[in-house]
Amino acid sequence: MAQLHHPLQALISHLSKLPGVGAKSAQRLAFFLLQMPASDVRAFAQEMIRTRETIQYCQCCFNISFAPVCAICEDTGRDVSVLCVVAEPKDIFPLERAHEFRGRYHVLGGLISPLDGFGPDVLRIPELLDRVKSHGISEVILALSPTVEGDATMLYLTKLLLPLRVPVTKLAYGLPMGADIEYADDMTLLKAFQGRTRVQQ
Amino acid sequence: MAQLHHPLQALISHLSKLPGVGAKSAQRLAFFLLQMPASDVRAFAQEMIRTRETIQYCQCCFNISFAPVCAICEDTGRDVSVLCVVAEPKDIFPLERAHEFRGRYHVLGGLISPLDGFGPDVLRIPELLDRVKSHGISEVILALSPTVEGDATMLYLTKLLLPLRVPVTKLAYGLPMGADIEYADDMTLLKAFQGRTRVQQ
Repeated sequence: MAQLHHPLQALISHLSKLPGVGAKSAQRLAFFLLQMPASDVRAFAQEMIRTRETIQYCQCCFNISFAPVCAICEDTGRDVSVLCVVAEPKDIFPLERAHEFRGRYHVLGGLISPLDGFGPDVLRIPELLDRVKSHGISEVILALSPTVEGDATMLYLTKLLLPLRVPVTKLAYGLPMGADIEYADDMTLLKAFQGRTRVQQ
Repeated sequence: MAQLHHPLQALISHLSKLPGVGAKSAQRLAFFLLQMPASDVRAFAQEMIRTRETIQYCQCCFNISFAPVCAICEDTGRDVSVLCVVAEPKDIFPLERAHEFRGRYHVLGGLISPLDGFGPDVLRIPELLDRVKSHGISEVILALSPTVEGDATMLYLTKLLLPLRVPVTKLAYGLPMGADIEYADDMTLLKAFQGRTRVQQ
């Protein structure tokens, strides 16, 4: 079919730019949108525009927010003395879902990755140090992915944070819940051994 | 995280209604949309609304179209005497991509599926018979999927079409190009044997 012949071509071309959506999925999504009620498609599309055009970064923690200060930083029920450092706003989502952490976050905006030309200077590290210095922080939890970039960033941050005499912790590494030891990789097992804890007796 | 706390929640909820998009993919897509240029997101969203609200069905073949008659039916370069019968508008897309068929289509709007309560009465069969009777059709090609529903529909249509003395054909069944015989299923191999053709000597 000549591409311009197809009435869905423009929509399919937009859809196929989404991550993980190939030509066939884009086509499938387009036909799905066609059979949705028009009012639902309109609400969806308008939410897309509204979200993209009104989103901003929290002045305090750099999480995404519809207001100058995000809902987490605004929440007076949370512990202001504990900071959880994450790479990106999207990391906050799963951490909040765990319902364990009740402090505040600090979004670095990435990780140190010299190979990608991504040094510490582009991260929000000065802002982190300012927060630690001026807000009586009792603990900084580094919640960065256990990768080369995450480890490099944790090392760098730890060096800067230790002189401030604030306890710095990082998330535990080990077997994920539900994992089968038979299929666990060597590095995870190594970390699980190193981090082993005494069984209550 | 309390659901209403998350600024992307509304968008994620819309995205997760798409087929094949679970909670995590929806979140990933939402963050992807955030980092797209706002103008691209707006163009995408507006195309979604425009497509959904202006699409209609071709009065002639029932393909989707932005005009009362679709581009294929309008195309004077195509052979008006050959009709290709398909189940849904989305089936036309791959058939056109094959660049082999140059006639016109007829979209049934589904397949006979008694188990789903989908009988022949909801299909556009009277319209098909009218077209065959009144337009001097020289061949009707049934391009329906080789499934129980497709076979039932082909049988039903053939009974109605044969009295009209129009040749009725169906697409060939056999090994798909690039297939490995080792992994072909029994039914496909059976059809491939039954439909074997003489090798040119």
